Amino acid sequence: MRFNTIQYKKGRLTIIDQRMLPLKIRTIEADSIKDVYSCIQTLAVRGAPAIGVFAAYGLVIGVKKLKPAEKKYFFKQLFRIIDYLKSSRPTAVNLSWALDRMKNVACDNYAKKISTITGILLKEAKVIHREDKAQCEKIGAHGAKLIKNGDAILTHCNAGCLATTGSGTALAVIYKAKQQGKKINVYIDETRPLLQGARLSAWEMQQRGVDITLICDNMSGFIMKQGKVDKVIVGADRIARNGDTANKIGTYSLAVLAKAHNIPFYVAAPSSTFDFTLKNGREIPIEQRSQEEVKKIMNVYHAPKKVKAYNPAFDITPADYISAIITEKGVIERPCSRKLKRLNVKTLKR
Amino acid sequence: MRFNTIQYKKGRLTIIDQRMLPLKIRTIEADSIKDVYSCIQTLAVRGAPAIGVFAAYGLVIGVKKLKPAEKKYFFKQLFRIIDYLKSSRPTAVNLSWALDRMKNVACDNYAKKISTITGILLKEAKVIHREDKAQCEKIGAHGAKLIKNGDAILTHCNAGCLATTGSGTALAVIYKAKQQGKKINVYIDETRPLLQGARLSAWEMQQRGVDITLICDNMSGFIMKQGKVDKVIVGADRIARNGDTANKIGTYSLAVLAKAHNIPFYVAAPSSTFDFTLKNGREIPIEQRSQEEVKKIMNVYHAPKKVKAYNPAFDITPADYISAIITEKGVIERPCSRKLKRLNVKTLKR
Repeated sequence: MRFNTIQYKKGRLTIIDQRMLPLKIRTIEADSIKDVYSCIQTLAVRGAPAIGVFAAYGLVIGVKKLKPAEKKYFFKQLFRIIDYLKSSRPTAVNLSWALDRMKNVACDNYAKKISTITGILLKEAKVIHREDKAQCEKIGAHGAKLIKNGDAILTHCNAGCLATTGSGTALAVIYKAKQQGKKINVYIDETRPLLQGARLSAWEMQQRGVDITLICDNMSGFIMKQGKVDKVIVGADRIARNGDTANKIGTYSLAVLAKAHNIPFYVAAPSSTFDFTLKNGREIPIEQRSQEEVKKIMNVYHAPKKVKAYNPAFDITPADYISAIITEKGVIERPCSRKLKRLNVKTLKR
Repeated sequence: MRFNTIQYKKGRLTIIDQRMLPLKIRTIEADSIKDVYSCIQTLAVRGAPAIGVFAAYGLVIGVKKLKPAEKKYFFKQLFRIIDYLKSSRPTAVNLSWALDRMKNVACDNYAKKISTITGILLKEAKVIHREDKAQCEKIGAHGAKLIKNGDAILTHCNAGCLATTGSGTALAVIYKAKQQGKKINVYIDETRPLLQGARLSAWEMQQRGVDITLICDNMSGFIMKQGKVDKVIVGADRIARNGDTANKIGTYSLAVLAKAHNIPFYVAAPSSTFDFTLKNGREIPIEQRSQEEVKKIMNVYHAPKKVKAYNPAFDITPADYISAIITEKGVIERPCSRKLKRLNVKTLKR
């Protein structure tokens, strides 16, 4: 089946609701700023690049609903919406990156009519969307060079079509390698608590005919020891300027395990995931989510209801553990501040 | 609440059904050899020491149901039951250890009347049961010496009251340290696919007033990196004579992560868990369980139904990763063949 992670058509912003996939396949519409916030916060739409695109369109939805007002008041409202949307999830920087880009475009056109600015914002959201799709292709092409015929690849969470508006980041590499005729098999860990691996990656890779094997998160060390894994590839939610990478909780464990077994560990992400304002990973904010997500699975309790639980949504993998970062601009092996500087990623005004 | 993991009273063998704990608390009776087999195979009763005790009583249930027969035929049937029960689960050696012990006692008393032999078998099962309880206490006492006031301990799966007929192995150490007035806090990982950590360990530790925090399996590396873990303690299903240890899947990953963070990694197990017939961990059979256990949680699918899954129930942790093995006979630091030999564990005739 074909699906659109995010679609903006005739003024309507729709997404495939990822919360109950693959059990329930349904499209929902975000018709207000509150809807947009809630879709991001509850993970109806997730994945760092996807929430960037979604927030950009979301801002347009919000701006269109504003009552006619003076320019000054319009901008005040615009900034308020931007701050509100930014607060929906703290870790993935693509969200604030996209909103800052929208903000800058609006400010650059302050002198124009409000209706013109609104049109410019929509145009910019469409550019961000188009760029995201194109970047996925490029990440796939650069990354596929690292994949050999016969490779067994372990991936985590979902860094695929559902996390972007194109073919993904980590999974774009897999799709591209497969398309090139390389015979590969992929282990996907289920990625508790929200099971993005088992629900989303397994589902989309299965549709694309990838040879996949689902494992539980705690099996990764054992399959590495058994020699079943040649490479690990994951996505990213924010990368500090020294290469330290925030990604879905569990990524750090995989990186340590990969290192202990001499398995290359790759991060695939567009340049919008880099945050050059941060010196290292210690400065990346880690979202803490509800304890209930750990005590429940698919909304049903399996653990005692009153037990305490810890639920960081992300962890930080130090650059030392990363063999290479795959971006749309190329592959940076053994990433460090010096090499990443050469990426020439613009830090946006905030 | 008080519960009996296994109870044998007035000829009736009952267990607390661990499959739906803590959602449903119910006792079930094993009234035939088929019941006994099925209770072990489906994990209604689980935990290496507990299934040893249960199989010993189970054999008695089976023998009592045999039709009156000649001695030779009685023994043939007895051996058949033993082989059948041994085949219920392959990894935990305590199961065959207990059944071999029962077999040897029967053989030693071959000359006696069948009814006398049956009585002797019941007596032996009760001795195994009593010994198991006592060993838990001793493991707790020896292990608690390793625990300092203020320690944060990570444990995996369930190596507690529900895995034994006493206070457990790994959890016995925790219970004893707490009883000694040491202030400790415990991280318990949920232990997919069957969630023994979230369902069983969280439940029994909560009842005993232990300060616990539930995490998902993939969070362990991150909490170690954050300095939240001082020690890791796990149980064991079989220990080869060089100290290589089979335990619930996920144990090996924890051991590698603990080593990478310089955190002591302890294994707690009674001497019945040692298998001196095996040179090392490579010789330990690993039970492969149904793929459905990975694709479902609490009997509900979350992954695509037709996806392939891998489900080894155990993994092997090489002795190099184990700081010490805690047994009822004492603590063996940095275990190796030479040191384990001194344990003087009898290898039973088979």
